[in-house]
Amino acid sequence: MEPTINSVAVGLDTVWVLLCAALVFLMEGGFAALEAGLVRSRNSLNIIMKVFMDCSVGFIGYFTMGFALMYGADFSGIVGTTGFLLQGDFSHLNLHIPVYAFWLFQAAFAIAVATIVSGAVAERMKFAPYLVYSLVATVVIYPVAGHWVWGSNGWLNQLGMLDFAGSAAVHSLGGWAALAAVLVLGPRSGRFNKDGSVNIMPGHNIPLAALGAFLLWFGWFGFNPGSTLSGLDLNIAKIAVNTNLAAASGGTIAAVLTLWRYGKADPSMAINGALGGLVSITAGCAYVEPLSALFIGAVAGGLIIVAVPLFDKLRADDPVGAIVVHGVCGTFGTIAVGLFAVDGGALYGGGFHLLGVQLFGVAAVSLWGFSATYAVFSVLKAVVGIRVSEEDEILGLDISEHGVAAYTNTEYPLPQVPFPAMDSGEYGIFRQMQNEDTAQILK
Amino acid sequence: MEPTINSVAVGLDTVWVLLCAALVFLMEGGFAALEAGLVRSRNSLNIIMKVFMDCSVGFIGYFTMGFALMYGADFSGIVGTTGFLLQGDFSHLNLHIPVYAFWLFQAAFAIAVATIVSGAVAERMKFAPYLVYSLVATVVIYPVAGHWVWGSNGWLNQLGMLDFAGSAAVHSLGGWAALAAVLVLGPRSGRFNKDGSVNIMPGHNIPLAALGAFLLWFGWFGFNPGSTLSGLDLNIAKIAVNTNLAAASGGTIAAVLTLWRYGKADPSMAINGALGGLVSITAGCAYVEPLSALFIGAVAGGLIIVAVPLFDKLRADDPVGAIVVHGVCGTFGTIAVGLFAVDGGALYGGGFHLLGVQLFGVAAVSLWGFSATYAVFSVLKAVVGIRVSEEDEILGLDISEHGVAAYTNTEYPLPQVPFPAMDSGEYGIFRQMQNEDTAQILK
Amino acid sequence: MEPTINSVAVGLDTVWVLLCAALVFLMEGGFAALEAGLVRSRNSLNIIMKVFMDCSVGFIGYFTMGFALMYGADFSGIVGTTGFLLQGDFSHLNLHIPVYAFWLFQAAFAIAVATIVSGAVAERMKFAPYLVYSLVATVVIYPVAGHWVWGSNGWLNQLGMLDFAGSAAVHSLGGWAALAAVLVLGPRSGRFNKDGSVNIMPGHNIPLAALGAFLLWFGWFGFNPGSTLSGLDLNIAKIAVNTNLAAASGGTIAAVLTLWRYGKADPSMAINGALGGLVSITAGCAYVEPLSALFIGAVAGGLIIVAVPLFDKLRADDPVGAIVVHGVCGTFGTIAVGLFAVDGGALYGGGFHLLGVQLFGVAAVSLWGFSATYAVFSVLKAVVGIRVSEEDEILGLDISEHGVAAYTNTEYPLPQVPFPAMDSGEYGIFRQMQNEDTAQILK
Repeated sequence: MEPTINSVAVGLDTVWVLLCAALVFLMEGGFAALEAGLVRSRNSLNIIMKVFMDCSVGFIGYFTMGFALMYGADFSGIVGTTGFLLQGDFSHLNLHIPVYAFWLFQAAFAIAVATIVSGAVAERMKFAPYLVYSLVATVVIYPVAGHWVWGSNGWLNQLGMLDFAGSAAVHSLGGWAALAAVLVLGPRSGRFNKDGSVNIMPGHNIPLAALGAFLLWFGWFGFNPGSTLSGLDLNIAKIAVNTNLAAASGGTIAAVLTLWRYGKADPSMAINGALGGLVSITAGCAYVEPLSALFIGAVAGGLIIVAVPLFDKLRADDPVGAIVVHGVCGTFGTIAVGLFAVDGGALYGGGFHLLGVQLFGVAAVSLWGFSATYAVFSVLKAVVGIRVSEEDEILGLDISEHGVAAYTNTEYPLPQVPFPAMDSGEYGIFRQMQNEDTAQILK
Repeated sequence: MEPTINSVAVGLDTVWVLLCAALVFLMEGGFAALEAGLVRSRNSLNIIMKVFMDCSVGFIGYFTMGFALMYGADFSGIVGTTGFLLQGDFSHLNLHIPVYAFWLFQAAFAIAVATIVSGAVAERMKFAPYLVYSLVATVVIYPVAGHWVWGSNGWLNQLGMLDFAGSAAVHSLGGWAALAAVLVLGPRSGRFNKDGSVNIMPGHNIPLAALGAFLLWFGWFGFNPGSTLSGLDLNIAKIAVNTNLAAASGGTIAAVLTLWRYGKADPSMAINGALGGLVSITAGCAYVEPLSALFIGAVAGGLIIVAVPLFDKLRADDPVGAIVVHGVCGTFGTIAVGLFAVDGGALYGGGFHLLGVQLFGVAAVSLWGFSATYAVFSVLKAVVGIRVSEEDEILGLDISEHGVAAYTNTEYPLPQVPFPAMDSGEYGIFRQMQNEDTAQILK
Repeated sequence: MEPTINSVAVGLDTVWVLLCAALVFLMEGGFAALEAGLVRSRNSLNIIMKVFMDCSVGFIGYFTMGFALMYGADFSGIVGTTGFLLQGDFSHLNLHIPVYAFWLFQAAFAIAVATIVSGAVAERMKFAPYLVYSLVATVVIYPVAGHWVWGSNGWLNQLGMLDFAGSAAVHSLGGWAALAAVLVLGPRSGRFNKDGSVNIMPGHNIPLAALGAFLLWFGWFGFNPGSTLSGLDLNIAKIAVNTNLAAASGGTIAAVLTLWRYGKADPSMAINGALGGLVSITAGCAYVEPLSALFIGAVAGGLIIVAVPLFDKLRADDPVGAIVVHGVCGTFGTIAVGLFAVDGGALYGGGFHLLGVQLFGVAAVSLWGFSATYAVFSVLKAVVGIRVSEEDEILGLDISEHGVAAYTNTEYPLPQVPFPAMDSGEYGIFRQMQNEDTAQILK
């Protein structure tokens, strides 16, 4: 078949969206590394498994139902109603690329919301109810918010809210959902003292966390520019630059502020500063000038430094800083569009209409994320329990929930005690013995 | 030069294939991390070096000879005969992209076969003979199978076998080659007891293995959709979705089954479940519907759970599960095309012809991979020996084969004994002393 | 808007450049992992933070000033003079893609130069003055050299120097800058003995270093082919193949040479061999034949083996081998163009003119990189000091410069002493206590 201008254009856009989707998918690997590095080693495998299951369970949930609720035929601006299992008509989306390509890109966004929550509830939440939440998040919570903001008849979209790649629809939603989850779940055992003071629980592998941050930054080059859904839209170049500059200024400000104030540049603050910059530019990357992106990122970097101790004071125990990075910076980024958008921003003579819409929109989305998650966590808590026992928390979730340790030191000196014999056919026994063995070690 | 429709179309396809090739290349990094994480730390560097050398030695082998045997002018449907060193005429390939782009994509596939075997023979195979096998695999074993399946006159291709991106030509081939290698090599010292029971040898770094799985999943977005060799072929979108869904259902099923049966979701099973799903959809990703992809991946996830203990019972010691992930799931995936292909599959009213061809084809490819590898390993065993000494196996291959430890703990407490002095010019002495030093530590 | 041939062509080129820029960005993650793995654990987080700050501070520097000095309107072939903050006219660049896309790709190159130096000064250089150097490198040192080589009126460009993707402008520059930095800074405490012998300071995590090498190799598929700035230029395929083959032969030669000479294939030599191959083909990838690329990479692999001990003899203490990989191999690769370029190379009957230009050009760029860095480091040394105290060097830079350890072992046995209580609002106190706690541990 001879190529035509149109077929080449569609091919280009499809290639662009698919490759960007792959980059966004890799962000899950970045989240896994980041969160694992920032928690204690005995819970590190558990958090990775939760992220891995977001990809597994979450993709299935978004395929079967989530996408339909988000992008199906609109009902009252609230929710989509068609397109379950990717079946049916999607002509109302006016896509010029295959719906499959659109789905894959959107699906990689959907699973990010649950993953944001996973970090905040790390080190104490049971695995099985987490899977349930991950499913609910990709099937209902995110799709509904997404419909509001990005559905062609979504009510926030109709109001004129601007959220290019999801500072509100993905990050504020996830961040404030994380706060709700943490409030229902409670802090880690031993985290807070009666006098209000906080015990440090340092991450076990900051290099791994940093590697995760590099992967996230890399993936964001798909997340934001890919949201054009078109490689023909040359705005992708400016979007990529804005994304990059906000990350750079967020990282710089957070590092320099800690260096200036404490004489030491704090690695996890610097990392979260860059991530905060990325989150905050996600709404406005297509609408603002590069200098504004620099400024927005810098503010996000400062917010990290200010807000992390604040949530500790509120006894909202968030081991990886997800509430601040995604909730605070996502909210700020959405509002910032109302100030910095070249077209409609208050600082560009656009008046305060857009700013008001942005404020209202991000509040609505955040409230929804918070309330829905609060409800789901409360029900799960009442029905099946969401928290591991204190004994298991001390033991670590890697052993208690998965029966294996993240790291097994088989380095020198060589183990003196042979591993227990087992019948390979009796897989259950193998697990049981491994656990007994671990319990033995603990005594 | 003014662009024309044709030049833009060719440019798009070239860009697509090159970027997909890069993604497939990164799968080697994924394999390295996965395999390293699943073996004991004292052998982890060795396995990474083997994968690294697949990329080094293997690319050279595929450049000088392998590509010619695979895609050169056909001889009797068995093997290619022209195009050594990428010289000569390739017009019989009817490529619309530069042969260099085609080569790079194919080369990244070729080295995967040796890498699959590397995992199965981990923790006991000598480094030098492995290099020889890696070369033979990329020069002969894979190219011959590839010619059968994908060569325009390849005999299995002529029969009508469908193997879109290589469940048979890459994964079954590699998986059953791994079985042959393991049978010649024998199990790890201390793995099996006389009564048939199995000793657990836990992987030393499951977070690293999981990171590898994320990289592999990411790379598969190049592996499968890239096999269209064209970004103009909009089927790439459905292929990417099918790939993703099979991974998701494989991971879900493996995790949920272990959770249900043992009360704990097993991380390495979940990871291998997702990888099994990816392997099994590789043949059919372009031919089946998304719901079928979900189902195929789910079956693969179940196969992982069932087959891993089975091979232990057969005393085929495979530290990373490569035989099951690639051999069993690759074979299943190839056969599944005969059932689920929209065009010709038995479940779609296509009768049993295609199913028969798929069964026959995957059997032929697997038998070739098994036999050729069995022969090469037997010759290597007889001539130079393939197995490290039992002493070296206990010491670990990192020290015995490479003279360095993967991890050197220079963390607190600080080392009391200064490192041995050496003359930097006398590099050999430096190595010798380092080894003596290590031997000292072991006493 | 209906697509036209031109709009599709521009879109394709923009997509290509942006995705390649993302790949080049990921090389920073690769550098971070590589360098961290090759140093001792107590300094591993510090080196990662330095690379992370290259991305943060460096991008801002290149945005505000560096790009203008490199690609602004020419002044006497020496330096650019317009385009600060990406404002103003760039029509003299004759770009067919948005200047933003061009900037992002160039920016990812710019930060690589500082990162190359970071590895060589690892384990002893203060964090704050490093930030200053990183800024100077991206604002002045690299842009000036880049203007000479790639500016349309750059004086080396006018001479006919060929440096396709920067063996000279990036790697020689960075490598010889690293040598200057090391000479001003001095070797690590305890590295050299009075009799000239060298004490081994093994890298703490070679698997991490290897993972970094895979990421770098992957990123190079953006670095070299992306330098066409066009996906319509089908030479991208040959460039990618040449890049790959040089890496493969560099890795092979370094591994096989160490295997042959010492009976053990040295991992860090093999890794640096492949990286040396990549560096050395970077200048000529667009100009030479694949067989030449294989040869160039092989020579680079050999150079690694020969030159690493040489610099030890010169007491230039380079923990990661950056001087050899980037300086020596970059210089060799630039010169090799004069021999192997199909158009103008001495071995292709082009006489010695090009060879002379290449020799002269790489000498000029290297001398600039060395001198400028020597000057900046000398000033920093005199004004603020560039070296941590010997006490801090023993303690490790992770604690002394960042107040946290890279790895915190919270694995079994569980910590007996509870973490110190602190007031979360008093962030400064928290840091102070953490440090005191660490000091306690050290006693």
